[in-house]
Amino acid sequence: MSTSQSHSVSGAVLPGHQLVLGPDAPLHLDCGEDLAPVTIAYQTYGRLNADKSNAILICHALTGDHYVADIHPITGKPGWWQELVGPGRILDTDRYFLICSNVLGGCMGTTGPADINPATGKPWGVTFPGITIADMVRAQVRLVDHLGIDQLFSVIGGSMGGMQVLEWAVRYPHRVFTAIPIASAARHSAQNIAFGEVGRQAVIADPDWCQGDYLLHGKRPQNGLAVARMAAHITYLSEAALHRKFGRNLQGRKLTYGFNADFQVESYLRHQGSSFVDRFDANSYLYITRAMDYFDLAADHGGVLANAFRGTKVRFCVISFTSDWLFPTRESRAVVHALNAVAANVSFVEVESDKGHDAFLLDEPEFHATLYGFLEGAAEHRGLPRAGW
Amino acid sequence: MSTSQSHSVSGAVLPGHQLVLGPDAPLHLDCGEDLAPVTIAYQTYGRLNADKSNAILICHALTGDHYVADIHPITGKPGWWQELVGPGRILDTDRYFLICSNVLGGCMGTTGPADINPATGKPWGVTFPGITIADMVRAQVRLVDHLGIDQLFSVIGGSMGGMQVLEWAVRYPHRVFTAIPIASAARHSAQNIAFGEVGRQAVIADPDWCQGDYLLHGKRPQNGLAVARMAAHITYLSEAALHRKFGRNLQGRKLTYGFNADFQVESYLRHQGSSFVDRFDANSYLYITRAMDYFDLAADHGGVLANAFRGTKVRFCVISFTSDWLFPTRESRAVVHALNAVAANVSFVEVESDKGHDAFLLDEPEFHATLYGFLEGAAEHRGLPRAGW
Repeated sequence: MSTSQSHSVSGAVLPGHQLVLGPDAPLHLDCGEDLAPVTIAYQTYGRLNADKSNAILICHALTGDHYVADIHPITGKPGWWQELVGPGRILDTDRYFLICSNVLGGCMGTTGPADINPATGKPWGVTFPGITIADMVRAQVRLVDHLGIDQLFSVIGGSMGGMQVLEWAVRYPHRVFTAIPIASAARHSAQNIAFGEVGRQAVIADPDWCQGDYLLHGKRPQNGLAVARMAAHITYLSEAALHRKFGRNLQGRKLTYGFNADFQVESYLRHQGSSFVDRFDANSYLYITRAMDYFDLAADHGGVLANAFRGTKVRFCVISFTSDWLFPTRESRAVVHALNAVAANVSFVEVESDKGHDAFLLDEPEFHATLYGFLEGAAEHRGLPRAGW
Repeated sequence: MSTSQSHSVSGAVLPGHQLVLGPDAPLHLDCGEDLAPVTIAYQTYGRLNADKSNAILICHALTGDHYVADIHPITGKPGWWQELVGPGRILDTDRYFLICSNVLGGCMGTTGPADINPATGKPWGVTFPGITIADMVRAQVRLVDHLGIDQLFSVIGGSMGGMQVLEWAVRYPHRVFTAIPIASAARHSAQNIAFGEVGRQAVIADPDWCQGDYLLHGKRPQNGLAVARMAAHITYLSEAALHRKFGRNLQGRKLTYGFNADFQVESYLRHQGSSFVDRFDANSYLYITRAMDYFDLAADHGGVLANAFRGTKVRFCVISFTSDWLFPTRESRAVVHALNAVAANVSFVEVESDKGHDAFLLDEPEFHATLYGFLEGAAEHRGLPRAGW
C-alpha cells in the first residue's frame, strides 16, 4: 500500500488512499491478460469496527469516482452521495465503515488507459487491456482483502455501480451480507449498447483522439468526448424532467435563426459536455462503456439468470425508478424474478419519480426511506449496534 | 417552371420536376429575409382530375425526400412509402394525384445551404437564412398554386411531415380538405431539442465542417454527420424493436475486448451512419433539425393550441404509435384535445406497434387500415369517384 499522491489527467492532485498491486500479485483479467502494477485509489468514511462487520462498499457509476462525500478535487463540487453520508445519515459514519474505490480503467487514481504502461514508458491508450465489470470487482476484492474484511455488510451502487453489486453477489456470495443494486440491470440492453456505441464513435471521430494516442501528442479529443457526454446525458434524464426544468424556454428574448444555443436545454447540454471533458479521460470513457456493454450475468450461467443466484444467502434490496428509461424497471424486475425463482431474500421497490435514471443521485425521499429501512433491518439482523465499534 | 435536371451534393442526377421561383417572386421567410431564386424539386404520381379536387400533398420527414414511390437516385432503394402508392393501393394513383416536394433547406433538388448563393457565387453554407416549418409550407403553397390547385384533398405526413401537415391546416385551412399528421407533434419537446442539439454539435465538432464552408474546401464532415445519424437513429426505434432485431447478438463468435463492432447492433448503427452521409448534406441536417426545434404551433396562438384550430373545417386524422418515444402518443393527444376543444372533426388512432417512431415508414397493418378507412370516407364525402378523373 502506497501513500504517495496521484494526479488526474488534468494534473490535479488527487487526495485519498491508494493500494498498489505489484508485479508479484497481478490482476488477472477476463480478456486473459495479467495486469500489474495496478493502483487502486479509494476513499473511506467512518471506522471499521473490531470484528470488521460494519463495512459497506459503495460502487460508483460510469463517470463517477470514489469522492462519494468529499469536495471533488477537480470540480470543487460536493461528493455525489454527500447527502447520504455522515453521522446519523442513511450511510451513517457513526455506524458503518464506508469504502469506495475508483474503478479499474478509470481516470481518478486507479490504473487506466491514461496511465503509463511500464513496459513502454508511454501512456497505455488503446493498448490497455479490455476490461469487464468482473475485472472491476476483482480489483475491489483485492482492496477488501487488503483491508482485512471477510464479509462486507453491504455492497451498494447505482447504474454501473449496480452491475458491480450484482457481480459481487454472484461471484462472492459468502463475502456479501446484503446487496443493493439501484437503477441497474443484469445486462446491457441492445439500446444501452447502441447509446454506448454512439458515445464511442463520437470520441473516435475526433481527429484529436489520434487513434487513442492523444496524450502522446499533447492533445485531447475534447469535442468528441463532449458530444458523447451530451448524448449520454439526455438518457440520464426523463422527458418529464427536461420539460419541467427547461421546456422550450429561450436563453435570450427571441429566436436567432442560427445555431447558437437559442434554447436553455441546449445551453445546459453544452455545459454538461464541456465541463465533463475537464474531469474525464476519453479512453477511460471508451473502456468503461465497453465494460458495461459486455456485462451479461445470465450469459455466464447458461443464459438463465436464476442460475447465477442459486443457493444465495445474500439479502437483496433492488430499487428502480418509474421514469428511468435507460435502466427501466423491467430490468430490475428481471433480477427480482430470478431471485424469487431461487427463493432468495429480496426486497423490491419501484420508486415513483419523474427524475429519470439520475434519480439515484438526487434527493428522492421515497428512495432514501427505502434505503434507510432496508439497512436498519439488515443491521439489526447482523447485530450491528447503532455505534458501530 | 424549369425542366432542367438538378444534381445532389454527391453529384447524382436527380430525376423529377422543378419549379423555380425567380427574383420577381421571392419566398418571404419567418426570419425576415426574402429568398430567391428558389428551386422546388418535386415528384407527382397519378393524374390531377378535371376539377382539381383529387390532390394529396405528401410531406416528408427530416431525412426523407420527394422520391416517395420511385427508386431513389442515390441509394437505389425503393421509395420510402412505395408500398402505399400505386393503382388500387391506399394512396391510389388511379384515384388521387399525389405530390411530394423536397423541403426548403433540403439537399435533393430544392434550394438549401449546399446550393450556390447567386450573390457570391459560392455555396450558401451557414449564410443560408434560417428556415422554419412555416417556410417549408410556404414553398409548398407556391407549388400548389403553380399546379392550379385551390384545395388539396389531403395533406399527409409523418414526423416532421406531420408538423407540415399541422402548419398547413392552421395557416391555410380553406386549402385543405383533410389533414393526416402521423407520429408527430404540435411542438418539439425539450428532449427533442436536446437530441437535435447533440446531432448538430456532432457535425459542428468535425473539423471537416470548416465552419460550414466544407464545400468550398472540398471536404465534408462525414464522421460528424455519421455520429449525428447514429444518435438520431436510436430515437427512431423502440427498445423492444432493437431487442427483437439484435438483442445482444454478436457479430463474430466471441467478444474481442476491443472497440470493433462486437455486437450486431453496433454494426447496424455504424452502417446507418456511414450510408447516410452518402445521401445527405451536413448543413441541410443543421437547418432542418433547427426548423423542427423552432416548431411550436401554440406559441404563435397565445400559447393555447386550441386557438390555432378555432373555426377549422378541416377533417383531421391523427395517428400515433404506442412504442414511439420520440413523438409519443401524448403529443398527438395534445393535438386531438385542442381539436376537440374547438369541436373540430377529428379521428384519432393510437396504433399498437413495437416498432417505435419509424413505424410510420413500415408495414403496419393497423396503421394502413386506419389510413385506408379515413381516406375512403373522406373521398366519398368529397365526391371523389374511385377513378379520379
